[in-house]
Amino acid sequence: MSAERARRIVLGRRPEGAPAAADFVLEEVRLPRPGPGEVLVRTIWLSIDPYMRGRMSDAPSYTAPVGIGEPMHGECVGVVLESRDRAFSRGDHVIGMGGWQSHFVLPADRLRKCDPGAAPLSAWLGVLGMPGLTAYAALHDIARPEAGETVVVPAAAGAVGALAGQLAGLRGCRVVGIAGGAEKCRFVTEELGFAACLDRRTPDLEERLKEVCPEGVDVYFELVGGAVLWAVLPLLNLHARIPVIGGIAWYNLPGLPEGPDRTPLLMRQILVRRLRLQGMIVWDHAHLEERFRTEVGGLLREGKIRFREHVYEGLENAPQALIDLLEGRSFGKVLVRVAPD
Amino acid sequence: MSAERARRIVLGRRPEGAPAAADFVLEEVRLPRPGPGEVLVRTIWLSIDPYMRGRMSDAPSYTAPVGIGEPMHGECVGVVLESRDRAFSRGDHVIGMGGWQSHFVLPADRLRKCDPGAAPLSAWLGVLGMPGLTAYAALHDIARPEAGETVVVPAAAGAVGALAGQLAGLRGCRVVGIAGGAEKCRFVTEELGFAACLDRRTPDLEERLKEVCPEGVDVYFELVGGAVLWAVLPLLNLHARIPVIGGIAWYNLPGLPEGPDRTPLLMRQILVRRLRLQGMIVWDHAHLEERFRTEVGGLLREGKIRFREHVYEGLENAPQALIDLLEGRSFGKVLVRVAPD
Repeated sequence: MSAERARRIVLGRRPEGAPAAADFVLEEVRLPRPGPGEVLVRTIWLSIDPYMRGRMSDAPSYTAPVGIGEPMHGECVGVVLESRDRAFSRGDHVIGMGGWQSHFVLPADRLRKCDPGAAPLSAWLGVLGMPGLTAYAALHDIARPEAGETVVVPAAAGAVGALAGQLAGLRGCRVVGIAGGAEKCRFVTEELGFAACLDRRTPDLEERLKEVCPEGVDVYFELVGGAVLWAVLPLLNLHARIPVIGGIAWYNLPGLPEGPDRTPLLMRQILVRRLRLQGMIVWDHAHLEERFRTEVGGLLREGKIRFREHVYEGLENAPQALIDLLEGRSFGKVLVRVAPD
Repeated sequence: MSAERARRIVLGRRPEGAPAAADFVLEEVRLPRPGPGEVLVRTIWLSIDPYMRGRMSDAPSYTAPVGIGEPMHGECVGVVLESRDRAFSRGDHVIGMGGWQSHFVLPADRLRKCDPGAAPLSAWLGVLGMPGLTAYAALHDIARPEAGETVVVPAAAGAVGALAGQLAGLRGCRVVGIAGGAEKCRFVTEELGFAACLDRRTPDLEERLKEVCPEGVDVYFELVGGAVLWAVLPLLNLHARIPVIGGIAWYNLPGLPEGPDRTPLLMRQILVRRLRLQGMIVWDHAHLEERFRTEVGGLLREGKIRFREHVYEGLENAPQALIDLLEGRSFGKVLVRVAPD
């Protein structure tokens, strides 16, 4: 094993606008060795998520960006090769922020075990992982929709949207999805059971949305920004709630969109409709984690929650996976299979 | 008394941009007569408030606009001339939405008595009235600042801002005001006791604000929008709260401001800093009314709350009072003395 080499993908340069393959560099490096209290993990699955675009920029954010020449950030599921902490043993399946790497070393307290018997390993990065908790926490801590309310979920076939919508549906809400293209919309209504799903590219999105939300919109999960936000805004009911989770339509813009400045429109609607907008980052909601895993794990076993994965094979395809995700070309939770189980 | 005539100011046309004197028409009409269950009131004080600009437009809002040829909306304190309801008697002092009129008739259930012994009559339209409750409710139901937090209050010499800031100060917050011009800023620090007050016209407002808010901003009372919002936004701390109460800098714009579209900037900050923005209209907070009047009435009597009034003499000056308020030329709670007590 000492002869084994590790592969990793580092940030080569900061993109302006959409990331390109040339912004990433695939490197072969010596296998890292764990120090005392540390664990060496071989990556099986790497999660690809929209927040990674933010980490490629050096604009101030909620955490430091990836440094040039440093491995891209990312959550991984893998298997322990060597443990220098009594909490883990060789062969354990674990989850942690290993980055875009075939092997990684982390302190034991930054790893968690995951039980491959309870759910497929990849699910710990999606419906039972960070995106799942994001959806669950946005619902429980911010949106709190009641039965009969109308909930609009963009990126509805994606990791966060799909779960948020299904959980709202189980609470008795009327759930309307927005997704990119007819195939995703069909999946969202037929497989996920949303009441309706509109193609985000529909030119008359606001009008169509009005038709499928005859009683207005009580909750809007803000994941995308852009045209979808402007289409939903006029339909929001008094006291509507908007968890602000992402804005993927804006992530690849090299600068601010052209004018006019529509901020006064947004602020006016917030006032007139007494909206509540609340930003959220999943790690503020760790208090829900156990409850989330019990509840959503149970729903999964009962077949009441479905999800779809878009798998890219091999670490070398991680850049393309992120590029596709940001352009809306992927379909379901995006994952890279870095190595077999 | 039957020979007495009434005067009123009606909306002559809808302004584009800033209202002008010619948008209003002063009329002399027959004295209205109360029907069964109604009360005839002679107006003493008319309150002038920023929301009136919204009522002059027919853009969809939280309530219907003033019709062309109809009296402008407004809250009044007056004295009962004739009552056809047992709840009120001639000579009672009352408060109600009488509009820009020397006399008005309202159903008894839309009037409240006000006690001229407890506070000057005009105070029932300001610090003890709708603007006061607005400040109190924004603080109690939305901002909930804790001792030691930094609170930024624009329009700090105005009716809502002055009370919001003083109440936050009494809770142990560090309160920083923003106001138009050195004289108002002096009043805000010396009379109202804010820790600091900046002139909103300062070209380097963001830099100056950073200096006087070395620990960032935990609560921002959004009353103004425009340049002040953009200056405060980068300084907001994690989990800062923003009651969205008004946007006076935008009210007189004939359309949206020039680009770029800064909405993504605002939404990104909401996410990254996990901000909570919540729109409010005072009438959603009626549950606080008794508590507010007891508490703020007590503070007034103890001299712990100060306020300033800007009085225009005569109903005919109501248009100028509103024009000045919207341009930031008034100083304190704006009132029209329609007639002597």
